[in-house]
Amino acid sequence: MISPTLIKDLEALLGAENVFTSEADCASYSYDGAVLPSKAPGLVVRPTQTEQLGDIIRLCYEAGLAITVRGAGSNLSGGTVPDVENSVVILTNSLNRILEINTEDLYAVVEPGVVTAQFAAAVEAKGLFYPPDPGSMSVSTIAGNIAENAGGLRGLKYGVTKDYVMGLEFYDYKGNLVKTGSRTVKCVTGFNLAGLMVASEGCMGVISKAILKLVPPPKASKALTAEFANVQDAGNAVAGIIAAHVLPCTLELLDQNTLKVVEADQKCGLPVDAAAMLLIEVDGHPAQVADDAARVEEVLKKCGATAVHVPGSAEEKNKLWTARRMALPALARARPTCVLEDATVPRSQIPTMLAKLDEIAKKYNLMMGTFGHAGDGNLHPTILCDKRDKEEFARVEAAVDEIFDVALKLGGTLSGEHGIGTAKAKWMEKETTRGTIEFCQRMRRSCDPNGLLNANKITGI
Amino acid sequence: MISPTLIKDLEALLGAENVFTSEADCASYSYDGAVLPSKAPGLVVRPTQTEQLGDIIRLCYEAGLAITVRGAGSNLSGGTVPDVENSVVILTNSLNRILEINTEDLYAVVEPGVVTAQFAAAVEAKGLFYPPDPGSMSVSTIAGNIAENAGGLRGLKYGVTKDYVMGLEFYDYKGNLVKTGSRTVKCVTGFNLAGLMVASEGCMGVISKAILKLVPPPKASKALTAEFANVQDAGNAVAGIIAAHVLPCTLELLDQNTLKVVEADQKCGLPVDAAAMLLIEVDGHPAQVADDAARVEEVLKKCGATAVHVPGSAEEKNKLWTARRMALPALARARPTCVLEDATVPRSQIPTMLAKLDEIAKKYNLMMGTFGHAGDGNLHPTILCDKRDKEEFARVEAAVDEIFDVALKLGGTLSGEHGIGTAKAKWMEKETTRGTIEFCQRMRRSCDPNGLLNANKITGI
Repeated sequence: MISPTLIKDLEALLGAENVFTSEADCASYSYDGAVLPSKAPGLVVRPTQTEQLGDIIRLCYEAGLAITVRGAGSNLSGGTVPDVENSVVILTNSLNRILEINTEDLYAVVEPGVVTAQFAAAVEAKGLFYPPDPGSMSVSTIAGNIAENAGGLRGLKYGVTKDYVMGLEFYDYKGNLVKTGSRTVKCVTGFNLAGLMVASEGCMGVISKAILKLVPPPKASKALTAEFANVQDAGNAVAGIIAAHVLPCTLELLDQNTLKVVEADQKCGLPVDAAAMLLIEVDGHPAQVADDAARVEEVLKKCGATAVHVPGSAEEKNKLWTARRMALPALARARPTCVLEDATVPRSQIPTMLAKLDEIAKKYNLMMGTFGHAGDGNLHPTILCDKRDKEEFARVEAAVDEIFDVALKLGGTLSGEHGIGTAKAKWMEKETTRGTIEFCQRMRRSCDPNGLLNANKITGI
Repeated sequence: MISPTLIKDLEALLGAENVFTSEADCASYSYDGAVLPSKAPGLVVRPTQTEQLGDIIRLCYEAGLAITVRGAGSNLSGGTVPDVENSVVILTNSLNRILEINTEDLYAVVEPGVVTAQFAAAVEAKGLFYPPDPGSMSVSTIAGNIAENAGGLRGLKYGVTKDYVMGLEFYDYKGNLVKTGSRTVKCVTGFNLAGLMVASEGCMGVISKAILKLVPPPKASKALTAEFANVQDAGNAVAGIIAAHVLPCTLELLDQNTLKVVEADQKCGLPVDAAAMLLIEVDGHPAQVADDAARVEEVLKKCGATAVHVPGSAEEKNKLWTARRMALPALARARPTCVLEDATVPRSQIPTMLAKLDEIAKKYNLMMGTFGHAGDGNLHPTILCDKRDKEEFARVEAAVDEIFDVALKLGGTLSGEHGIGTAKAKWMEKETTRGTIEFCQRMRRSCDPNGLLNANKITGI
């Protein structure tokens, strides 16, 4: 039970209209995008001013409540599922002001709950470019992107969220304000706490403000698609493009299972007979775009593409890119449960990884669709199943174990962009060392002695 | 006194030839590039295998010795000066193997003591590019660059060291190995400890291995120089180039004092009558280089450049770039003491900052030369003085205080790339908050409970 005094204090601080305790309200914030049991918080609060965050944390921490901060809840590893009883969820959706877009110095300052796509559009309207584009960007929030170090389709050329965080303000477990980084391109004033907050999944503090790097937009771009008669050839083409020193802004793969499911769902004319399809986009100076596109086409043909196609219009291109973005929701609709994995390998290992994924799907007799950011080695093998079928789900879990083993054996990592949360915590030591886990736990305890900031995520304390 | 048993244990571990205790040896590692009192360690060790680092740390930490790791000692904020009595210095210069340069997956794996310029050359020989180029790169080491988040001339377009660290291995205070990051472009497996280690100045652990990102080299480049009749015009040109959405790979400024001192030292034909000179280089696809160079020239002329010059040969260009690199050593030779500052402002504030620096030099009647990475707002106002002259040095200290105040007032930061060390620790709270200092101290204590890892640097514990 959460104390009525605390609720009264929070109501005084935030207004009664921003404090929710009803079962229905709490249930709405009990789950996220991961396949994990839901758990309802005991209390939900919605600050409307970033300055309120410090007081909320102080009050809740002193009351011994676990605190989970929630942007859009689009997380895929359980990062926004409260993992303990009687916890409080802090909603950031009313902290959604873009405070500054500085076109001279190429940065922006935003509150935590700004929606990624809305921010990107506001930046574009000022003639600049914010590259990180996670799949969920139409709903995801900037602070959620930072807490998870969200990736996206442009990671290969433009990097991921962490590459755009110049500075942060956040509140620690005591409710004190911490400032790190700067509006300057270079800053080494003290520890790189912004670097630490990135990917920290809410375990270190609560982000109240972010200074984000912007870049001049590319002057031109060109999209291509390629079809392949087998997935190995597509993998070789991916590795070949990078080896040719072309860094496309997008280099995505969809395998046949994915193509079929998305086509059934979207009816956008995808080549369902192809074993795999690549979606490629190069951008930059017009002359570079022409050179890069020619080079990409050369590699595609050398690697046995059965068809290479240049979309005839922006509309046609957008349809294909939307189809790619619909891969996850389309797969998710195909069967009751959709287990989306995120194991990532060095790019040259993509052909081997694809072959192994195929073997694993066959070995465990599972329906698997694989798509993802092949250009940066970040594939999303997606298993379609029904969690209620215990026998089947045991095979899914065994397959996931094996996917991680293979990725690590190929020099890869457990998670490219979805985070560890609670979903992958048990595999952490496999990739790192016991010393790494202990180091993280010690560090975490120093930032959260009672283990209340997004309790139990990543390593626990 | 350091215990003879410890020395014996270290000799057994490293070989007697790698353990130094003589006064002369210890004195050699008592200072670095900062204007600070030197302090000799009681013991110096030189591991030859990275695996030895864990045992060295464990033995020394258990014996209560403070530990300072030293690459080349080119640090400018006291980061490699042992700050307490009877400490141990660990030399990394024998841990200098480049373990892998992967041209398919665009990364390299190196030991901590690899010299930056040698690494950059090895990468270039394989047809790739490692952009970070701190001024001291001919001697500085990769782990030193990481510990200080070293910048350089290319920061504006290519970023700084932190933008190239994909993964790290390091030993914590217990001597346990910690692994973080990956050979993959994307990795969110656990806390971003690589981000935390960057700029941590040796306070969190001892780096034993780094995975570094490489990029395809630019296909073309073009250099320009411009002279100005007053430093304000040069500052406006810098801001104007960025506002025109050109990101040069180099955009450096030298003011008249610097030009005169460097010319006297180097005799390379610098325009000593100009109030300021800009060195600019654009790179990328040949067509983009041509467009960008034309645009830069346009801005330079619009901002009142009295001369714009394109070096006629690579040799001529190299002479000018070497002159820029010689700015610090030339200034350092001009008078007994050379106080090099590192305050950094958003780029649009460069004209204001230059005017303020001029005012400050006049107010305190000091000889100041200003040069630096104007393109990223990172100026190096350099005061030439004699530390033994107490009256003069008091004016220097007052001027430095005022430089920091101005930089912070303009939305800037204390240090762009030199670090905090002991030299700037006292100003930390001015830029951040009390909460920030306390957060850092708590975090640091968790990684170093006895305060022995590069004791007293940044915030202390």
